[in-house]
Amino acid sequence: MKIELENVLPMDIEARSFEIITEELKGKALEAEYAPIIKRVIHTTADFEYADTLAFSPEVLPKALSAIRKGACIVTDTQMAKAGINKRVLAGFGGEVLNFMTDEDVAKQAKEQGTTRAAACMDKAAKHKGPLIFAIGNAPTALVRLYELIKEEKLKPELIIGVPVGFVNVVQSKELILESGVPYIVARGRKGGSNVAAAICNALLYLLDETRAGNQT
Amino acid sequence: MKIELENVLPMDIEARSFEIITEELKGKALEAEYAPIIKRVIHTTADFEYADTLAFSPEVLPKALSAIRKGACIVTDTQMAKAGINKRVLAGFGGEVLNFMTDEDVAKQAKEQGTTRAAACMDKAAKHKGPLIFAIGNAPTALVRLYELIKEEKLKPELIIGVPVGFVNVVQSKELILESGVPYIVARGRKGGSNVAAAICNALLYLLDETRAGNQT
Repeated sequence: MKIELENVLPMDIEARSFEIITEELKGKALEAEYAPIIKRVIHTTADFEYADTLAFSPEVLPKALSAIRKGACIVTDTQMAKAGINKRVLAGFGGEVLNFMTDEDVAKQAKEQGTTRAAACMDKAAKHKGPLIFAIGNAPTALVRLYELIKEEKLKPELIIGVPVGFVNVVQSKELILESGVPYIVARGRKGGSNVAAAICNALLYLLDETRAGNQT
Repeated sequence: MKIELENVLPMDIEARSFEIITEELKGKALEAEYAPIIKRVIHTTADFEYADTLAFSPEVLPKALSAIRKGACIVTDTQMAKAGINKRVLAGFGGEVLNFMTDEDVAKQAKEQGTTRAAACMDKAAKHKGPLIFAIGNAPTALVRLYELIKEEKLKPELIIGVPVGFVNVVQSKELILESGVPYIVARGRKGGSNVAAAICNALLYLLDETRAGNQT
């Protein structure tokens, strides 16, 4: 078999990928407003299921963009999600990515309370001053703890990106966020991941960053 | 609707996840040797397609484990993959994770040669002394360059984990690696990702790390 490579310049690869995704999504009724987010998640995963599973709370987009514009920080539950987020663009709006997973006080609290470090991170985040976006791509326990903190009125996130992946309480934790009353972007079902969390953050950032606008078609 | 959480202790979540994966894979003829790798990729993605798409070169497992044991370093094409690999366990064998994506000389070479930074990283890696494993979860251009370097006899990787994700030359770049003559673990088709690359590295590391053996069932 002869393997033939498509001749695409490095700078054009992403745009070409989005063209292919757009073409293959034809016939699918995407809400135009959310298309850049859905397409970027598909770009990151090559998984078109996300066109059906991504759920958006009412008016989440203006709320999310406004939060970023006012300098919201993004809290992640993995170093991988942190690594994947475009921190340069986020910093342009005054925000940074916060991850407490390797903090000693978090490990200590998790051990004492018999919870996960990811859940303990949410408690630590609740003490943070300033607007927060949560990008949870791994730990359903983080989403469950966020739900509790919201219900106890100890935390009011600007946005929860709820896309943990897995098999134990993942589906349920996402359903809790749908009922939390805060703005959300959630991948219903088992699928998700740190890469998906980062892709959604980047899709939002690129909607605000005109230098990347060309990639959003 | 009442949302009911399954009561699983934090330390048991991973083992319970692997139980569910094993249960749902029943009836599927997995090669026992590769089951820990396939299951860990499914654990990371909740995507059972990988049971069909992961391809292994002959005797890749003893070769990969022997490379790790002799202190091979792992070269990644993203910071995300680097973030996801268990660097503590790798360091126990004398290896470390190398990522050249943000190096200035790499950016310069990519610009001069009209290639991607990921491809230029492979040239830089080819100058490295000592055994190397490549974990490529993002850039097909990195796989294409690896193939060229192997054919030019400038590089002889111990193992290529070839799992980029996407739409432009992704399928083809993986097929090239299947013909490269070096040991490989490849996710055929469009799917993959930095998370998948890291998961495969970790599956290999945990096969060697007895403290994690319980999670490999």
